[in-house]
Amino acid sequence: MFSSDLIKQIEFISELEKLKLIYRQNSVLGQERQENSAEHSWHIALMAIILKDSIIFNDVDIYRVVKMLLIHDIVEIDAGNNFQLDDSEKEQIQKKEIKGAKRIFGLLPSNQSNEFNDLWNEFEKEETKEAKFAKALDALQPVINHYLTGKENTNPHNLTKEMIIARKKFIKESSKELWEIAKRFVEKSVEKGLYK
Amino acid sequence: MFSSDLIKQIEFISELEKLKLIYRQNSVLGQERQENSAEHSWHIALMAIILKDSIIFNDVDIYRVVKMLLIHDIVEIDAGNNFQLDDSEKEQIQKKEIKGAKRIFGLLPSNQSNEFNDLWNEFEKEETKEAKFAKALDALQPVINHYLTGKENTNPHNLTKEMIIARKKFIKESSKELWEIAKRFVEKSVEKGLYK
Repeated sequence: MFSSDLIKQIEFISELEKLKLIYRQNSVLGQERQENSAEHSWHIALMAIILKDSIIFNDVDIYRVVKMLLIHDIVEIDAGNNFQLDDSEKEQIQKKEIKGAKRIFGLLPSNQSNEFNDLWNEFEKEETKEAKFAKALDALQPVINHYLTGKENTNPHNLTKEMIIARKKFIKESSKELWEIAKRFVEKSVEKGLYK
Repeated sequence: MFSSDLIKQIEFISELEKLKLIYRQNSVLGQERQENSAEHSWHIALMAIILKDSIIFNDVDIYRVVKMLLIHDIVEIDAGNNFQLDDSEKEQIQKKEIKGAKRIFGLLPSNQSNEFNDLWNEFEKEETKEAKFAKALDALQPVINHYLTGKENTNPHNLTKEMIIARKKFIKESSKELWEIAKRFVEKSVEKGLYK
């Protein structure tokens, strides 16, 4: 009764359940559990909608940014969420993610499969203004979240302010405003004892 | 240093953390915990993007639908997620939600506060085609989720197929295709022993 496209779409929609089980390094409020990549994606999609007029990205295609953010972590269903402060395993992770994209987006009808693959590659390459905005938000949200959810004077990974700044400073090249927000939250986190 | 608009937006973005702690009746895979309203919102926003071309909604403004779905449950930060199979407490819940909308959307700069309030009201009134599509997806996703995450032959609320059909049949008026999907998953859930 259903078209073959609709059957594929339902399979993809069912697969999405798994992203709710991909836990990140970050926590939720009260630290009752770790944050997962589905709710993280929801949060940054809304951040894009809310912040687009306050920061300087001329003529950004906001719907494209939102779509990009909603799908950007789906590859983690296969590749996992890889928290890393250096780039030592970058290549291995990328391979797993590319394989994940092929399998998971491949569940969709071919036109949508191609669209999502292209969007995800655009995000990863970070060349278009949409991808730059998306990447900056993806990097900013955990900084805000860590300040809000971190338990005072708790720093299990011995993070330093310098490590975080080094990891996040690319935000500045995308948006001075978003970088100012990131720096402010890093400062607040130092005061809270979350970074040395 | 930050404009007063940006300060308000950061406060709203911080407030959004709380939706990750609003747990629904539904579960995640493996039933390790209940699903929350943030990840539910992510899921249905993606469903809208994926399904829009497979179902008959002429000229639907899909970005408007996605925005509506991303914000539709934010009022639950104050009002809670209220699972109900009848309408006995409907009025009380609505009052709490309207109060929640006023407070939470009120954190934003006034133009965005008004926009989000209007969008949420549009969703609740279910008159425009965007709101009808959004409401149908909001009702369909838990049916799919329940089938996927429910533990075989487990029915703690003594749910019957008839109760679910009565609660969900409004989907048919919005979209015959979405209703067919809902019915299929209800049947599969009966076979799995999740409904009598």
